[in-house]
Amino acid sequence: MIVTSAQQLMVTAATGSWKATVGRATKLFSGMTEAQLLQPVAPGRNRPLYLLGHLTAIHDAMLPLLRVGERLHPELDEIFIAKPDRAVAALPSTENLRTYWADVNDALQQRIETLSAEDWVERHAAVSEKDFANNPTRNRFNVLLSRTAHASFHIGQMVLAPK
Amino acid sequence: MIVTSAQQLMVTAATGSWKATVGRATKLFSGMTEAQLLQPVAPGRNRPLYLLGHLTAIHDAMLPLLRVGERLHPELDEIFIAKPDRAVAALPSTENLRTYWADVNDALQQRIETLSAEDWVERHAAVSEKDFANNPTRNRFNVLLSRTAHASFHIGQMVLAPK
Repeated sequence: MIVTSAQQLMVTAATGSWKATVGRATKLFSGMTEAQLLQPVAPGRNRPLYLLGHLTAIHDAMLPLLRVGERLHPELDEIFIAKPDRAVAALPSTENLRTYWADVNDALQQRIETLSAEDWVERHAAVSEKDFANNPTRNRFNVLLSRTAHASFHIGQMVLAPK
Repeated sequence: MIVTSAQQLMVTAATGSWKATVGRATKLFSGMTEAQLLQPVAPGRNRPLYLLGHLTAIHDAMLPLLRVGERLHPELDEIFIAKPDRAVAALPSTENLRTYWADVNDALQQRIETLSAEDWVERHAAVSEKDFANNPTRNRFNVLLSRTAHASFHIGQMVLAPK
């Protein structure tokens, strides 16, 4: 009989869901050739290569948002968040984007594993201490769930990509 | 200054994420005409009408899985879980499927709101009491996060549907 606190079980569930989701995306990206990465998931829609950059940028931004570290690749935001796919002609190379994806998620995973249950319900960086005192739901845990849902949303699109 | 327990804040985050995700799907389905519901999200892929039935069936199954109630529409499984889209010629009517979606999610939302933080880390129905004693991660909270990710996955696909 293993006894674990409710809050620790919830952290285990949420970080497990995050890790599984990132793992699923990694498997999809790894299984795609350069040509497949450049073929839109549906006619006129995003290419998987853009989604690779987009998810990397969003996950990279989680490092400061969760207040666990500095960004590794802030330069991706302009191409992969501010602008839609095909708005920028010269994307970083596929090889580089694959490396950034691995580095960002590894860094994030390492930091995530150091957070205690109490740390998870501390404020995220986009809310001031004053606002957080009035609204304690704006915490790191919320960011983690929100970014897990975001990745799942795009994974659903990537599985539609022509083989 | 509002003081709330860590576990209650985590429940608030997870149930909030669930509610927002179901709300997003509802908005997408409500905004689609019959013709749009019958147009595949990408060439050869699922039609939104199938996804409406599929998500309804999966959410309906959460009632017993979370041990909060009986299923309302178990008859949907055969068409929308066991079989892929277009394998069954005669689907339930769009009007009925829209009603089932609303009823199932309303029932689920009502029950979800009655669960305490301690209730959330109790076992789900697909694990025995004995197995749960050895692996307390197989709890209701895990089911909620997993089904939220599942819905997000399909929402990502539905936003690709031709307008």
